[in-house]
Amino acid sequence: MRRTVAEHQAAVAGLLRWSSGYDAGAPEILPLADALGRSLATDVPAPVSLPPFDNSQMDGYAVHAADLEDPSHLAVTDAIAAGSVPADLRPGTAAPIMTGAMLPTGAAAVVPIERAVPPRFHTAADLARPGAAVTVALPAGIPAGQYVRRAGSDIAEGATALTAGTLLGPAHLGLLAACGVGRVPVRPRFRVLLLSTGDEVAEPGTPLAPGTIYDANSTLLESALTEAGVAVTRHRLLGDDPAVLREALAGIAAGSTNLVLSTGGISQGAYEVVKQALADSSVEFSSVAMQPGGPQAHGTLSGIPFLGFPGNPVSALVSFEMFLRPALQQLTGLPAARPVLDAVLTEGLTSPEGKHQLRRGLFRGGRVALIGGPGSHLLRALAASNCLVHVPEGVDILQEGDRVQVTLMGPVPTDPFAVEDVLVLEDAEPASVTD
Amino acid sequence: MRRTVAEHQAAVAGLLRWSSGYDAGAPEILPLADALGRSLATDVPAPVSLPPFDNSQMDGYAVHAADLEDPSHLAVTDAIAAGSVPADLRPGTAAPIMTGAMLPTGAAAVVPIERAVPPRFHTAADLARPGAAVTVALPAGIPAGQYVRRAGSDIAEGATALTAGTLLGPAHLGLLAACGVGRVPVRPRFRVLLLSTGDEVAEPGTPLAPGTIYDANSTLLESALTEAGVAVTRHRLLGDDPAVLREALAGIAAGSTNLVLSTGGISQGAYEVVKQALADSSVEFSSVAMQPGGPQAHGTLSGIPFLGFPGNPVSALVSFEMFLRPALQQLTGLPAARPVLDAVLTEGLTSPEGKHQLRRGLFRGGRVALIGGPGSHLLRALAASNCLVHVPEGVDILQEGDRVQVTLMGPVPTDPFAVEDVLVLEDAEPASVTD
Repeated sequence: MRRTVAEHQAAVAGLLRWSSGYDAGAPEILPLADALGRSLATDVPAPVSLPPFDNSQMDGYAVHAADLEDPSHLAVTDAIAAGSVPADLRPGTAAPIMTGAMLPTGAAAVVPIERAVPPRFHTAADLARPGAAVTVALPAGIPAGQYVRRAGSDIAEGATALTAGTLLGPAHLGLLAACGVGRVPVRPRFRVLLLSTGDEVAEPGTPLAPGTIYDANSTLLESALTEAGVAVTRHRLLGDDPAVLREALAGIAAGSTNLVLSTGGISQGAYEVVKQALADSSVEFSSVAMQPGGPQAHGTLSGIPFLGFPGNPVSALVSFEMFLRPALQQLTGLPAARPVLDAVLTEGLTSPEGKHQLRRGLFRGGRVALIGGPGSHLLRALAASNCLVHVPEGVDILQEGDRVQVTLMGPVPTDPFAVEDVLVLEDAEPASVTD
Repeated sequence: MRRTVAEHQAAVAGLLRWSSGYDAGAPEILPLADALGRSLATDVPAPVSLPPFDNSQMDGYAVHAADLEDPSHLAVTDAIAAGSVPADLRPGTAAPIMTGAMLPTGAAAVVPIERAVPPRFHTAADLARPGAAVTVALPAGIPAGQYVRRAGSDIAEGATALTAGTLLGPAHLGLLAACGVGRVPVRPRFRVLLLSTGDEVAEPGTPLAPGTIYDANSTLLESALTEAGVAVTRHRLLGDDPAVLREALAGIAAGSTNLVLSTGGISQGAYEVVKQALADSSVEFSSVAMQPGGPQAHGTLSGIPFLGFPGNPVSALVSFEMFLRPALQQLTGLPAARPVLDAVLTEGLTSPEGKHQLRRGLFRGGRVALIGGPGSHLLRALAASNCLVHVPEGVDILQEGDRVQVTLMGPVPTDPFAVEDVLVLEDAEPASVTD
């Protein structure tokens, strides 16, 4: 059957949500340092306020509420270091106070040391000098609350610090640490069994027989899934025999995996092993209005979700980016959504009008250059790109200077724009490829 | 001494480049699956061409060079599956050929199956029917080379597949796999010894004494460094005693670490443990024209690079993002450079004119909302943001609708823009903080 990209995205998201058994998994409780990059399983309330107490934002003097108008002659008291509990502040006195130190009771504001006269803290020698009146003069009219960080001004005790589904990065873990939370419940990893099939593919590192190619898809998809926070098991099936594949699929135990993913063997050819093996199953073989990545398979096998991606490496990665990655994000909170940005095309392009075309591009400085042609076998071009360029259905031609949306997948170069210096790719293919 | 942001960036990058001993480290040789997210140590040439041989881009018929003009009546030969070595193609015949299968000698183009008459491959039954003339008619005037992927059109044998310093993502590892490369040399991890100091900080998970706070910086910086590909060792020093710190620093053996990083204790207060401990060393204590993160320390201790970040968590993370992260990227190839994007401010702001201010923001849909005020203790606001908003030196006020640059640090929300629904943060601090 024919589908739009949005229809197949919904189908894949629904398949994972309703059949993967993922929600049944218990959260893992991890120390903060091990929770980096994981998805929070539950809301976490703050067990303490942040800051926990009123404190100074500056190194300076704490001033009593009664002295804000005229602090021109204040007696200097003992200094307040961060980590200590200060004595109450009396009117007519000023307490040297360090950044982060607790504000003494009675104090209403802080004046930075550089605005004091003298503009430095007194030394032990100053204080020891016999008969010395240790005083300080501060500018008149200090605003109440100046340079005071109020207790709970960042977060109040009991308020939600982080919500379920948050992808835990350094700032989130830092916030939990600041709240005194040492361990955190995270969602379990989503588990994928990755199948590779086909007579024509050989393992990297082995000799290459004539007519065969190395298996790029297993490495490509295992890496993409791993980067997305998925636990991947690779299952290599040599041969194009549907019976062998059927037997392997029948042996997959429910509960051990959330998804079976295969590449290749789902197209219109005469030897399509996945299509043949699953001809009598409930798996649907669709033609999605997308280029590359048109042929797609999805369904369940003994209740376990199954996705079949096309066999060309670029098609497989685009299928992952367009269908599986967003579905994982919705279900598990991982991986992070990719930035989608506006960009100006540095050259024109053509696209089949009835398809959503995804070209590989190099985005920088608000502009995007196409890297390689539309061919779905161009792995080097894929490796040299940092984004997918969207040419929506209904658009068949774009000119240099036209605006497009790009999905950013890799680092953005910061040096001057010079794609042509970096990479000269020959690619004389027609644009009307269908794979 | 006073410095600009650019001057301190150059100082930190130079310190790491010339003193860290990082370049002396031998590459690690890893299987592809373990090399994800690492930086390539050397250029890698392609040991084979990609594709390795001329092959078909479609399921269809391979046509002889002599029949391109008039292919209206061709005898169908044996089909060519991917992975097999085909017999030579004779004039007057057409070979059913599958996507990725080797083009037979003599063939000059491929016609997709859907343009053939009949538009499907013959079955075994067709071929077995006695006396049946198995033929196919194809449209006249086939362009030479149509739907043929030429050997080497993605990359030629011996050409550079990837250059040293490439951050290895799925597409790069897929390209290496496609070339048959099973193991790859990567640069060693950069090693950081992370020191936390101060009487006022307690470990998360322990009780909190009055006046003290939990240590957020160790978790924050360990996570940020880990995410950046650094191997981190944490070294917790209780107390604010300069002698203890000096002793600990003296015990760090050269060769075991590329950088010692501390937070806190470098400002203008009366109890600045790092500053006091290193008063007689060659470490420089600078005031960088940046807010937050103004106080900075850098130098070497027994030849080992040392950086001191300020102690407020937001200041510490901003220091990492502005100084250490770019220096690591330049030296080691890790981590990926952050995207820097143009964005439209959804509200006005003020900034000290003589400083490069970095506010926390939430970027989406080309617009950026400020999250929290400029205060460097606002960790919850940091956790709710996904970018740093740059207000350059010389700018003291910006209005709603003004354009700014933002450094993207986290996922971009894809739902409609509604910051006010997500987060209501009270923050009444004045903008003129200096920490």
